[in-house]
Amino acid sequence: MAKAVPPKPPRKIAVIMAGGRGTRFWPRSRTARPKQFLAMVGQESLLHQTVTRLDGHFRPEDIFILTTEELAAETRRLLPMLPADNILVEPEGRNTAPCLALALVAIEQRLPDGGVMVVLSADSWIGDREKFLADLDTAVTHAAEKRDLVTFGIRPTYPETGYGYIETEGEGEVLGVTAFREKPTYEKAVEYLESGRHFWNAGMFVWTLKELRAEFLRHSPEMLAPLDDWVAAGARADQLPQAYRRLPKLSIDYALMEKSDRVAVVPAQFRWSDVGSWPAVVEFHEADGAGNVVIGDAILIETHNCAIFGGQRLVAATGISDLIVVDEPDALLICRKDRAQDVKLIVDKLKSLGREDLL
Amino acid sequence: MAKAVPPKPPRKIAVIMAGGRGTRFWPRSRTARPKQFLAMVGQESLLHQTVTRLDGHFRPEDIFILTTEELAAETRRLLPMLPADNILVEPEGRNTAPCLALALVAIEQRLPDGGVMVVLSADSWIGDREKFLADLDTAVTHAAEKRDLVTFGIRPTYPETGYGYIETEGEGEVLGVTAFREKPTYEKAVEYLESGRHFWNAGMFVWTLKELRAEFLRHSPEMLAPLDDWVAAGARADQLPQAYRRLPKLSIDYALMEKSDRVAVVPAQFRWSDVGSWPAVVEFHEADGAGNVVIGDAILIETHNCAIFGGQRLVAATGISDLIVVDEPDALLICRKDRAQDVKLIVDKLKSLGREDLL
Repeated sequence: MAKAVPPKPPRKIAVIMAGGRGTRFWPRSRTARPKQFLAMVGQESLLHQTVTRLDGHFRPEDIFILTTEELAAETRRLLPMLPADNILVEPEGRNTAPCLALALVAIEQRLPDGGVMVVLSADSWIGDREKFLADLDTAVTHAAEKRDLVTFGIRPTYPETGYGYIETEGEGEVLGVTAFREKPTYEKAVEYLESGRHFWNAGMFVWTLKELRAEFLRHSPEMLAPLDDWVAAGARADQLPQAYRRLPKLSIDYALMEKSDRVAVVPAQFRWSDVGSWPAVVEFHEADGAGNVVIGDAILIETHNCAIFGGQRLVAATGISDLIVVDEPDALLICRKDRAQDVKLIVDKLKSLGREDLL
Repeated sequence: MAKAVPPKPPRKIAVIMAGGRGTRFWPRSRTARPKQFLAMVGQESLLHQTVTRLDGHFRPEDIFILTTEELAAETRRLLPMLPADNILVEPEGRNTAPCLALALVAIEQRLPDGGVMVVLSADSWIGDREKFLADLDTAVTHAAEKRDLVTFGIRPTYPETGYGYIETEGEGEVLGVTAFREKPTYEKAVEYLESGRHFWNAGMFVWTLKELRAEFLRHSPEMLAPLDDWVAAGARADQLPQAYRRLPKLSIDYALMEKSDRVAVVPAQFRWSDVGSWPAVVEFHEADGAGNVVIGDAILIETHNCAIFGGQRLVAATGISDLIVVDEPDALLICRKDRAQDVKLIVDKLKSLGREDLL
């Protein structure tokens, strides 16, 4: 009798979402130089780290980047290890559901026999590479066998009020989802922190191409129809913008995950940060005895709990505390550590003043 | 009978003390670019303003600048209206008494028939030009007629604890001096402010060459002897450093003014500022509705009572208050408005680190 041949492991491909704007890390990030291009944490850019983290687990030809027209050339330049035509271009930013619908139809062309899509974010930081890859395998196996839409849940470490939460049930490596919870009040965030059943949504997904299509058709058919028409008409690049413009600007969470009844959560063993603002970057560095984080050339006197992101120049400060200073060749930012979100206000102001040179 | 011929007005010459270091206005001022070279207030440098203020009242050949070796070339360059050899060079900084002793012997060479020396400071600001010139005339006339050492007294406008005070007696355009008071406590400064008899010492003097010599010989002969020897030996430039090094490093106040019994004070009608620190410069500018003074390109959000001295770059700030920001091409300073004196600590630190490039 012939030995049972173990099933071939599913073909898996990675899709890294790398659009993004440069708002929260201004003045270091710009429209043409968004966060994922910056070496915010570590020696290489976040985008580069996201790709190299997959070394040995994904073949280069199976790693795709989804980005915008404006960023495509720089993205190809930063990722010479990938085939140039693995850099997929979305005609405009229309939130994440259209983006993933486009990724789906593009990958379907390349993988007519199907496979598992692993969706990652270009501008997050992930620690514990081995644990991450193990969790990925868990998710891929589950998605292939159970045909669920799998997402990773990050166990909260503090009562964050700026993220949505996923409420889960069950035990083990893969959990069921009972609800998606919107950004909570502080009190609710404390509850979620303590419940043991609530996780931050890291915006990373694992699903088979087949199931993604099925769930789109079931819950959000308008997200696929224009793209299927486009493919049927020859998938011409010059016709994509028009088709894409017809897709509703929705997040994948809203368009799909919150409606589907086949969502599963793999609680992450790995560490994660969305590196969402300057204070988050500060967390990655060791502060000195006065609570200051200093990158670059600085002299600080009677200065406490500051983060100095120096550039070419000496930054000298006396008698200040709780400030973030970012020194770039054409702009300087000084802001209170606990008001880092106000950087957006500066970017808005620059826009309203027509200061394209600084955006 | 022949009409009485009115006495010829005394020959008057101006000596502008323009040595100075760059400490308190770092990072804008540097060792080779001290405060008087900067246009801190107004379009021209303070040194330039000091000279042009005398237009029409002193002939260019009667205006002398006393500066250091290091600053001489730049000083000549900044003051093309003066004869190059009116820029007198002191071999090293040894405080103000040696400096004025040197000025005395140098001017005696040029004015063998005597005259009145008007000593001014290169790095102060003076308003009300006509009032200033009128007060100068009062002082010159008094010095010529009464042979007193005349100084200008600035009527205090607030209880300054960082200046010495002159205590006076009498009434009128010229007052007598009862005492020199050292830098007071705050309470004493308030007393002085309210007494009506106490004035800030602006470091400007008017005296005849003859009387200055007589008073030096009377109270501080060691300040003149080495220089007289030097002149007697031919007044050779290469021999000056050695002679100069023998002069005690004392202020003119300590060496002479506080000992002399022929000191007079002309209460100033003009406005004056020693522009002694960044906050003093802030006073010269109009603050906006949020209390901010902004020079250059800045975007300020929820920012109050700050002074932004921008350079080439955009300075963006959110949520800060009571700070001074000085942006120079190679260095940035951020300091609390009420801790501006700490800039000196930064300069000291730079010295101890051997950072000559930034000094």
